[in-house]
Amino acid sequence: MTKYEQLARQLQGQIAAGAWQPGDRLPSLRESARRADISLMTVLSAYQLLESEGWIRSRPQSGYFVAEPLASPIEHSPSLLQPAETVDINAVIFKLLQAGDDPACVALGSAFPDPSLFPRQQLARSLGRVARQLHSQGTGVSLPPGRIELRRAIARRYAARGMRVSPDEIVITSGALEALNLGLQSLTVPGDWVVVESPAFYGALQALERHRLKAVAVATDPQKGMDPDALAEALERYPVKACWLMSHCQNPLGGTLPAARKQRLLALLARHDVALIEDDVYGELYAGDEPPLPIKAWDEEGRVLHCASFSKTLGSGMRIGWVAAGRQAEAVQRLQLMSTLSASAPMQLALADYLSGHHYDKHLHTLRRTLAQRKQRFCRAVQRAFPPSARLHGAEGGYFLWIELPAPVCTTRLYWRALAEGITIAPGRMFATDDRYRHCLRLNTSLPWNARSDAAIRRLAELIGEQLA
Amino acid sequence: MTKYEQLARQLQGQIAAGAWQPGDRLPSLRESARRADISLMTVLSAYQLLESEGWIRSRPQSGYFVAEPLASPIEHSPSLLQPAETVDINAVIFKLLQAGDDPACVALGSAFPDPSLFPRQQLARSLGRVARQLHSQGTGVSLPPGRIELRRAIARRYAARGMRVSPDEIVITSGALEALNLGLQSLTVPGDWVVVESPAFYGALQALERHRLKAVAVATDPQKGMDPDALAEALERYPVKACWLMSHCQNPLGGTLPAARKQRLLALLARHDVALIEDDVYGELYAGDEPPLPIKAWDEEGRVLHCASFSKTLGSGMRIGWVAAGRQAEAVQRLQLMSTLSASAPMQLALADYLSGHHYDKHLHTLRRTLAQRKQRFCRAVQRAFPPSARLHGAEGGYFLWIELPAPVCTTRLYWRALAEGITIAPGRMFATDDRYRHCLRLNTSLPWNARSDAAIRRLAELIGEQLA
Repeated sequence: MTKYEQLARQLQGQIAAGAWQPGDRLPSLRESARRADISLMTVLSAYQLLESEGWIRSRPQSGYFVAEPLASPIEHSPSLLQPAETVDINAVIFKLLQAGDDPACVALGSAFPDPSLFPRQQLARSLGRVARQLHSQGTGVSLPPGRIELRRAIARRYAARGMRVSPDEIVITSGALEALNLGLQSLTVPGDWVVVESPAFYGALQALERHRLKAVAVATDPQKGMDPDALAEALERYPVKACWLMSHCQNPLGGTLPAARKQRLLALLARHDVALIEDDVYGELYAGDEPPLPIKAWDEEGRVLHCASFSKTLGSGMRIGWVAAGRQAEAVQRLQLMSTLSASAPMQLALADYLSGHHYDKHLHTLRRTLAQRKQRFCRAVQRAFPPSARLHGAEGGYFLWIELPAPVCTTRLYWRALAEGITIAPGRMFATDDRYRHCLRLNTSLPWNARSDAAIRRLAELIGEQLA
Repeated sequence: MTKYEQLARQLQGQIAAGAWQPGDRLPSLRESARRADISLMTVLSAYQLLESEGWIRSRPQSGYFVAEPLASPIEHSPSLLQPAETVDINAVIFKLLQAGDDPACVALGSAFPDPSLFPRQQLARSLGRVARQLHSQGTGVSLPPGRIELRRAIARRYAARGMRVSPDEIVITSGALEALNLGLQSLTVPGDWVVVESPAFYGALQALERHRLKAVAVATDPQKGMDPDALAEALERYPVKACWLMSHCQNPLGGTLPAARKQRLLALLARHDVALIEDDVYGELYAGDEPPLPIKAWDEEGRVLHCASFSKTLGSGMRIGWVAAGRQAEAVQRLQLMSTLSASAPMQLALADYLSGHHYDKHLHTLRRTLAQRKQRFCRAVQRAFPPSARLHGAEGGYFLWIELPAPVCTTRLYWRALAEGITIAPGRMFATDDRYRHCLRLNTSLPWNARSDAAIRRLAELIGEQLA
């Protein structure tokens, strides 16, 4: 080892041991050289090496600082496993979801799109046709991987985007949440490490906890999704078995991975032989005219489990999702056979019938336009009413708006205050295993814009103002 | 302690330590008395005490023998956890279930009733009505505990039997299998002990394995179900958290717990504060005219999680079940919220619509009569064709027949041989974590009796004959 490498390793050891904390300024080049009695160039080389490895960052005119770790291990922190804490978060989630069902509530915290946006009439026709077929055919028992009619219809939709996904690797599930859970179980045993986003969909955090997995939360950009450098670091440092991320309209941030980033993330996972659970339930709600390709499109090894559903586009109550599970297709089926057996056969057939017509793409086109208009309305209203320091993310695609408020605001407190007045929000606390997003919240912008939603936004702004006062 | 008690405890210690194995003959009274230099009566008293406690058994003219333990711990034996073994059993189960879907197969191994027995026309009408309502109402999001319409309809059926079950403790699930899994998860953490039947429904064994629980397999009588003495022993010896059993038409034996035994089992569980998962999916298929009460009927503490479904009476493909979960109702809902969210809303509404009419009880009456007739037919054919030493169990209620063949027969071999000829059976190997039922098989007698089923029974008898030759 050369002298500069020795110095670098020594400093790295000190950082890892906590002697230098993230944000600390390192001694200047000159000072270090004097102390260690080595040349300025040697110190500079050491610092540059550490910078290239991500341990420190230089700031022009200011010197070198210890970097924030891009990947922070969660490893079942007390806040994740402490029963009281867990129950508390589940209670918030439970209330949020129930409020979405309560017509008296302005459900800005809901994860579901406004149900009036669903094509009920056409779905009813399909369900009616299935009902009439029941006379003669019966439903029999429905087994994994699910009805071939529906698997073929889904495979055709992949094909229309130029992707080769065989009906044989598709497993129909009771909503995408089951697909995600079964995929995760098929890839891991308790104690394994899994990469998740930060902030992450709470369903992912709950699944990790339930299956006793260890999580590495990886920095995720509000616009561009998971940071490849952070993922690389996580894969270097931890024996990761699976990575769970959302490629489009990420929940809660709203961001979408650019195509180049998708490929880079997949290449990193391939290099470390790690499977990807691609949660793509918002994939059809993209912004603009061009449908983005899922990461699965670049997967030639069966490494990606692409999970999606009809819950965000046709109706949340049907509970039909799927996973294009690649190499895991059989493992997922066996796990399903032991848990729910299969999804409802008449519902599968009704969806296959609906997809066989040409309504779906037309419906999606209208849905995307409506969601974009409603989101614009909400954005303008929030910008008008909220403090100017509030930062808005997720303005493009999907129906979530992620809002960063000034640090003193606690959105968990805001949640309880608003709930008492018939308004729900999704507090930042739901999307991490610690308090780092306590000043953030997620709003559902799929609701129709009217006097009630207008009043709700204004009232939220007032409650935030009270906290800041 | 008196002298005889001392001797008894000494012998018990030796048995527990393995010095005496099950089946070993203990020294005669006379010999023991001589060795220990105590009176014959003291030895006799000691032996009688041990016999009353179940440690030893007397055989007339032969002396005293160490008893087979009634409750045998499984504690994740290698055969349960060894991946190859697990995969093998899952492969058998998977093939069996798929063959049930294959019209070219005589699916005597299937767990599902003949689908032609389902009231398709009336269900189709209900589904059609729900489809028409979709126009105006939509399905919205379906959340735990499930649609109130269906929970009320189920609660009314309990009430009709004189049971008090509130809609509030009922959680609608994706079939009973999900109810059983969620119930088990709500009661245990990995490493906990759970009592199961021997032989047991394979779904229970798989669930224990998946949740990394330890199992005590408790002796179960083919006619009268779980042995209360064996349960008592299991509860004394192991820190049991939950007991999972089938009260009616047990799978695979076919037996039903008499009312007195139900109460005794519940009292034992209450004394040890252990929860009961009552798997009652065959409860409506009872023999005779009087509907038996589930154990839940005697439960005044919310200790029993009564799990059932419509899969065996109305259609296996709908995937609608429920649990009347007592004290666990909220815990079960939260677990469901993290896994499948909820069962399909249109299917729930269709079933609620169907139950609101008066067809169900009439249908069940006919179904029970048809199943009883078909079972009789099958029994006669099996008795005629199989070797005279074959013992038949489960002749009353449900649609399973459990057959004990002479010890040399291996039903796993029989399974593979028969499958090659388009006939499935359920081999004994599926219902335990070891080989103790390798000479047993389960037949589904719900199939229509015709030339094909007749030929299949004869062919099975021939294949058994080949193994015995």
